Amino acid sequence: MEEEYRIEKDFLGEKKIEKDAYYGIQTLRAKENFDITHTDMSLFPTFIKSLAKVKKACALTNFELGDLNDKQRDAIIQACNEIIDGKFHDQFIVDPIQGGAGTSTNMNANEVIANRALEILGEKRSTYDVIHPNNHINMSQSTNDVYPTAIKLTLHELIYKLKDSLRYLRDTFNEKAVEFKDVLKMGRTQLQDAVPMTLGQEFKTYAVMIDDDIFRLRETQALLKEVNLGATAIGTGINTKAAYQRKVISNLREVTGVDYVSAGDLIEATQDTGAFVHISGILKRVAIKISKICNDLRLLSSGPRAGFNEINLPKVQPGSSIMPGKVNPVIPEVVNQVAFEVIGSDVTISMACEGGQLQLNVFEPIVAYKLFTSINMMRRSFYTLGEKCIKGITANEEVCMDYILNSVTIVTSLNPILGYEKCSALAKEALATNRRVYDIVLEQELFTQDELDKLLHPKNMVNNY
Amino acid sequence: MEEEYRIEKDFLGEKKIEKDAYYGIQTLRAKENFDITHTDMSLFPTFIKSLAKVKKACALTNFELGDLNDKQRDAIIQACNEIIDGKFHDQFIVDPIQGGAGTSTNMNANEVIANRALEILGEKRSTYDVIHPNNHINMSQSTNDVYPTAIKLTLHELIYKLKDSLRYLRDTFNEKAVEFKDVLKMGRTQLQDAVPMTLGQEFKTYAVMIDDDIFRLRETQALLKEVNLGATAIGTGINTKAAYQRKVISNLREVTGVDYVSAGDLIEATQDTGAFVHISGILKRVAIKISKICNDLRLLSSGPRAGFNEINLPKVQPGSSIMPGKVNPVIPEVVNQVAFEVIGSDVTISMACEGGQLQLNVFEPIVAYKLFTSINMMRRSFYTLGEKCIKGITANEEVCMDYILNSVTIVTSLNPILGYEKCSALAKEALATNRRVYDIVLEQELFTQDELDKLLHPKNMVNNY
Amino acid sequence: MEEEYRIEKDFLGEKKIEKDAYYGIQTLRAKENFDITHTDMSLFPTFIKSLAKVKKACALTNFELGDLNDKQRDAIIQACNEIIDGKFHDQFIVDPIQGGAGTSTNMNANEVIANRALEILGEKRSTYDVIHPNNHINMSQSTNDVYPTAIKLTLHELIYKLKDSLRYLRDTFNEKAVEFKDVLKMGRTQLQDAVPMTLGQEFKTYAVMIDDDIFRLRETQALLKEVNLGATAIGTGINTKAAYQRKVISNLREVTGVDYVSAGDLIEATQDTGAFVHISGILKRVAIKISKICNDLRLLSSGPRAGFNEINLPKVQPGSSIMPGKVNPVIPEVVNQVAFEVIGSDVTISMACEGGQLQLNVFEPIVAYKLFTSINMMRRSFYTLGEKCIKGITANEEVCMDYILNSVTIVTSLNPILGYEKCSALAKEALATNRRVYDIVLEQELFTQDELDKLLHPKNMVNNY
Amino acid sequence: MEEEYRIEKDFLGEKKIEKDAYYGIQTLRAKENFDITHTDMSLFPTFIKSLAKVKKACALTNFELGDLNDKQRDAIIQACNEIIDGKFHDQFIVDPIQGGAGTSTNMNANEVIANRALEILGEKRSTYDVIHPNNHINMSQSTNDVYPTAIKLTLHELIYKLKDSLRYLRDTFNEKAVEFKDVLKMGRTQLQDAVPMTLGQEFKTYAVMIDDDIFRLRETQALLKEVNLGATAIGTGINTKAAYQRKVISNLREVTGVDYVSAGDLIEATQDTGAFVHISGILKRVAIKISKICNDLRLLSSGPRAGFNEINLPKVQPGSSIMPGKVNPVIPEVVNQVAFEVIGSDVTISMACEGGQLQLNVFEPIVAYKLFTSINMMRRSFYTLGEKCIKGITANEEVCMDYILNSVTIVTSLNPILGYEKCSALAKEALATNRRVYDIVLEQELFTQDELDKLLHPKNMVNNY
Repeated sequence: MEEEYRIEKDFLGEKKIEKDAYYGIQTLRAKENFDITHTDMSLFPTFIKSLAKVKKACALTNFELGDLNDKQRDAIIQACNEIIDGKFHDQFIVDPIQGGAGTSTNMNANEVIANRALEILGEKRSTYDVIHPNNHINMSQSTNDVYPTAIKLTLHELIYKLKDSLRYLRDTFNEKAVEFKDVLKMGRTQLQDAVPMTLGQEFKTYAVMIDDDIFRLRETQALLKEVNLGATAIGTGINTKAAYQRKVISNLREVTGVDYVSAGDLIEATQDTGAFVHISGILKRVAIKISKICNDLRLLSSGPRAGFNEINLPKVQPGSSIMPGKVNPVIPEVVNQVAFEVIGSDVTISMACEGGQLQLNVFEPIVAYKLFTSINMMRRSFYTLGEKCIKGITANEEVCMDYILNSVTIVTSLNPILGYEKCSALAKEALATNRRVYDIVLEQELFTQDELDKLLHPKNMVNNY
Repeated sequence: MEEEYRIEKDFLGEKKIEKDAYYGIQTLRAKENFDITHTDMSLFPTFIKSLAKVKKACALTNFELGDLNDKQRDAIIQACNEIIDGKFHDQFIVDPIQGGAGTSTNMNANEVIANRALEILGEKRSTYDVIHPNNHINMSQSTNDVYPTAIKLTLHELIYKLKDSLRYLRDTFNEKAVEFKDVLKMGRTQLQDAVPMTLGQEFKTYAVMIDDDIFRLRETQALLKEVNLGATAIGTGINTKAAYQRKVISNLREVTGVDYVSAGDLIEATQDTGAFVHISGILKRVAIKISKICNDLRLLSSGPRAGFNEINLPKVQPGSSIMPGKVNPVIPEVVNQVAFEVIGSDVTISMACEGGQLQLNVFEPIVAYKLFTSINMMRRSFYTLGEKCIKGITANEEVCMDYILNSVTIVTSLNPILGYEKCSALAKEALATNRRVYDIVLEQELFTQDELDKLLHPKNMVNNY
Repeated sequence: MEEEYRIEKDFLGEKKIEKDAYYGIQTLRAKENFDITHTDMSLFPTFIKSLAKVKKACALTNFELGDLNDKQRDAIIQACNEIIDGKFHDQFIVDPIQGGAGTSTNMNANEVIANRALEILGEKRSTYDVIHPNNHINMSQSTNDVYPTAIKLTLHELIYKLKDSLRYLRDTFNEKAVEFKDVLKMGRTQLQDAVPMTLGQEFKTYAVMIDDDIFRLRETQALLKEVNLGATAIGTGINTKAAYQRKVISNLREVTGVDYVSAGDLIEATQDTGAFVHISGILKRVAIKISKICNDLRLLSSGPRAGFNEINLPKVQPGSSIMPGKVNPVIPEVVNQVAFEVIGSDVTISMACEGGQLQLNVFEPIVAYKLFTSINMMRRSFYTLGEKCIKGITANEEVCMDYILNSVTIVTSLNPILGYEKCSALAKEALATNRRVYDIVLEQELFTQDELDKLLHPKNMVNNY
Repeated sequence: MEEEYRIEKDFLGEKKIEKDAYYGIQTLRAKENFDITHTDMSLFPTFIKSLAKVKKACALTNFELGDLNDKQRDAIIQACNEIIDGKFHDQFIVDPIQGGAGTSTNMNANEVIANRALEILGEKRSTYDVIHPNNHINMSQSTNDVYPTAIKLTLHELIYKLKDSLRYLRDTFNEKAVEFKDVLKMGRTQLQDAVPMTLGQEFKTYAVMIDDDIFRLRETQALLKEVNLGATAIGTGINTKAAYQRKVISNLREVTGVDYVSAGDLIEATQDTGAFVHISGILKRVAIKISKICNDLRLLSSGPRAGFNEINLPKVQPGSSIMPGKVNPVIPEVVNQVAFEVIGSDVTISMACEGGQLQLNVFEPIVAYKLFTSINMMRRSFYTLGEKCIKGITANEEVCMDYILNSVTIVTSLNPILGYEKCSALAKEALATNRRVYDIVLEQELFTQDELDKLLHPKNMVNNY
């Protein structure tokens, strides 16, 4: 009868591992120790690939320095490449939220790569004297340099995707800005009628906001290019050869195609999480602005009869289980919630980063988990917002124009001529008598009708520069 | 020539103190060490009084146990009573945000009381062999029991005042609920027209919300009655006599008139800040709800021409430096900001409480500072809200009724008879043709006009129970 | 050839549904509209069951009021019971984070129950004239009362489970408190040596803290018993019969076995999220205290050679990929991270609750999502903490005692006899000469050796009451 | 008898103003409306000066465009210059937290400048036909461009000061890094002994961290240079002449000496608060890192007998009212609290910025208040930290070296030769037998003593690159 299990041991004892599993004893211990999210690392394929890229760069370097032989190198590189191609991700079974500063994730990678490399060499699983998870796969490495480096690679890539989603959103707003460029409407400050503008200007604003955020995200990518690979345990580079650090960064650039550089001070870089706090702050910035935009969209489309009713959002689903015909702004509503999630995660990340002690921040796993999740949620929701909401928005031009014509604060444009106090009196009268400013001014013969038509025409108020 | 200074010393050396100052060397050191807020403890008179009450209870107990003589007791008690009466608060010069877990504040009190007691006895300042800040005023005490006990006394009293302000606000809303009980209007969910209600119901809701919060605040006052007085340094009661702890609590009840009790486990009570986190959470709850109410008030009064315009807030100041006649909802706006302050402070308090280590939480000073400030800001802003805004609100009844008559979702009330799908079709048609549901239903002869008048009358929809 | 799809339609058009799916068109629309978390409602089985219980209570009530016939009732009740028994949860495919205030989740339930009931009756899927998702399953209901009621049922049950995990943790700490009751050690305030205590007292403290939190959680369960079922759209109870509201609460009590009551003001209860903010605040309180405990455990076990080294945590996995023999406090570390998650979620929930407008809070989906997730993560991590960490802790008694004997602040106990200043001088000398206080005092002949042995014996300092 | 009051009126009515006050009716209304912080704008002199600079730039521009005459210009400019020189700040009596998006602060400035300008011209207060707060001082302006522009000027300047304080702190750490460059010590990860490093490296790390933050702060100053002056009410530039906007920016550069530029889209810039969120995030980043450093300092100086005791912080005040000789790390403790304040303020600012609606963010007052306060508190506390703590730190070299010699993980350096598993066995034995790794390895004759002395010498482990 065939055995279903193989035995592995470490300095704490031995354990049975499923015979065909690529992971080993340390992965299994971690799996048993951490059951927090009920998910596993395969939730984040970009991260698993990044980790394999780091391992590959290290193996190449160790070979160059004579510490791995050809056979070992080839097998390890092939195993890494397979993971980079999306294979074996189901073998990354540890919970993303874990103690130990990522050691379990790193060992999971070390064990999977070791056993797959052994398989490539025709060896049985766990014959670690040939290729050992610690001695060969993790050679010249520590979790403390490999893990944060892989996080940075991942974020660098995820932020590209996030920017793509923002560009899509920006372009969608820009299209609407053109479409609505002639729709005159009241601007509002403090929810009170202010002075005229165009709906196109309103939508253009959102495009500009988003464009600005894309720049800010690009700046954070520069921060992510500084990695501490070669730092090993605490940044002193213990157990690496003198030439290793320079070479491994060079190999990392080759493997990834991105111009990563070594952090200036590896001890600092190993304990500092400033870049993660920074990025979280920028993600929060993006979230806050998009949430503000969604709040505006919900306001502008409020009604249809008892609200602003200036624009119509596309109807994507019936809005009520009880009220027939009701349709709700469900897409902006869900994006708001994503924003709240991101803002709350920023607090989680802040606490995790503040809690680091001495030569390491042990809470990096939750920092990575929250950053990856925030970006993924945002990216998905931004495409949804663009595609299912913004694209289909239509304007109620007549409603918009009526608001201007009835407005009181339109008197503002007479200010430079009549002075603030006379205009206040006119406004007061318009409100008290429920009439239009236009009619009152005309009646008082302050201007001829021609003059007034020019002075009070909304078109003349919407763009001074 | 008269000396302007006297000299005091401690185990770190000596310092010159202003001759007439009641505080001593430790206060002065702290003053020099901590310049964070540019304010001092006199910002919080209730706290200074609470601290004096605690000191008084301790002195009474030490006398009863034979450790202070009559003369010492009388002088100390008089000094405490004077502080309780509001005197010498200008002598509490240390910054409320300080290191040392409140030791500086406690020593400030010890020194002021000692020197004032010496003065009462006809002794010169600093003749500490007669009455010593540590040996006599702080006898059987540690900062670690005295300081948190004084914080709890303070919060207990401040919450009474906060509840008063909420009661005022609740009553103001209730008055409006009565005033507006017959004003029919559209209810809104998700900023979309829903089904009818009365403006009275809308305002009643705010009164009910606030009333609920008053109960929740009352519950927190119970938590505040558990104090750790007698715990001294870490809760083991070191340097107190066996009978001290029971007696000092009894004296504290006498001095304050509040039924304080001893915490069940003094070691736990000395390091735990659960009650402060709890109260901050409840304050945040209050803030969130009031902020939501203010958001609603701003929405309902939006306009006057291009918004909901259902209610008018009283005009308390011109709203714009450029737009004549504009008036803004400035009172709700400022209350919103107070709410944001309280919500942010909750994070500060959370971090401070999480950061406590082993037998003490050293960050109590900022916890107290934020709690006191939050309560003070809320109390002031709630009175402002009630007096300068809610009281003067008026309703635009006609606008409110028009919204109902034009609404589409009023069709909801035909649902039980016609079914969800038929009603959806009616709603769709009303929207598409920009007509009233009433007219369409009548046209389709689904009901007689009499039936319809009854079925669609808003009054019949606003209160089912 | 068999058809794979059936067609359903609503007022926005029609869609193809998988033939065998129990859900219908509105579920499918929602599935397409919301792809945020990449998960679905089946993540929260307790919630799905709670929703089915609410639907069951409503169906029973509608039958009693004559609005459902026997056949309809029986089929609907059976369908609900099956869901309560854990069946069909894979049919709840909508994303838990969604726009629309939960309408999609409610409609998912309505559609699954309707189609399963139809199946029970031998009808084909989608023959909604027999049993209709809106007209029959959702009869006398709105998402706005059904959904928050189901959230409250869920939280009520989840908090029971959370309390169980806390009880387990408390008992584990209590066992250790007994085991360590005679281990003398230094207490520390501000990370500086303070005065002696026992390790048993230190662990007892944690048990007391947790016990207190269990009480606080129990109080929140009372808040959860107030539900707004019967409120329908905005709290006015539109489309329900007069007797409905009383009866449906009574049926809900029957179905759940929990004494739920009707909220006092249904309009208020439909828009207010105070209870959720409140519970989140209490969860945060629990998280903060447990995080503090974990911080302490990590401090006390720091070392083994260059740290406090007072206790040993059980070794659950190798600690380093590079440093042999290193073992880390991975269990407390992961629990810290859960705490940070909960604290961040509190901010998310605060923002969601603050963002509610007028008659409804549209952001309830993320509030529920975060609360459920927080409780689940905490519960799992508390069992892990108790079982894999606390249970196996051992004490290094000798190390602990040496710290006391070498300590300087042990001089505190001579304070009442020698006075604060003399003791300060002794402490200063002990520090300067790197000697023990005991030896210096003896040398100065301030006490006989016998007196001193009594005065300075740690045992005499650890429990005054 | 002399009159004590003068009368002013606006469109809401009239009020008595103190005869000699420079402020007018709108300031007084605001003073009465907002009593939140019990402070006033004079708390922030840099802001008052910035506002005066903006007003000056506007007056110069209005003169150039022919809208003010020589006399008016000269008087206004002189009044502005006096405020820039620190005069009349006591006339800025409005509460910094206010409704109305800063209108009250802007009108306070308008009124003070107008009345001082009138005085210069020999006119009586309130003779506004000569110089009017709105018509002349606020000419071509709105609160909505003036106020945020003044906030940006202020932040730009305050960040310079904050960077100075960070430079001071960085330099202080660098001096210590040199002083401690030969002190060998154990590095720690997860509070567990890791591998050797120098105390100099540890302090150098803090200098590097801070240096990085200075760069990040400099980047934010670039964001602050984009201002929306000329946007007036909503960004359309209503009530300004075509040439105004270009000229006013040019004048602003002249007045301030800083190269401010016009925002690219003035409508966007008027409503967007992205820059403020961004800066708050960076301030939080700084706070988190400094807090981490303070946590480390407290850990490293823990003891003196029952802690790490690697370094001694200077003794700045007695640490306990009860424990003689106790000295606490009070300076790091207070800096931690400042960090918590800043982190909490970031949440307040996030909520305020998310809450902006349509063409304006009405919550800018609290955003400015929190940012100014955070920077001020940080700056003060950083100087305190450097001067009263870091400068005086001393090292306990012998303690540090003993930790290394006794450590188990020093075996790490044998890893590349003996392999992870053999080293684990050695570590295990060292722990079990409470012996040094050195002795065990020697005993097992794995190396000669000479080899071992080289392999295990800490100096050879602390710097690989």
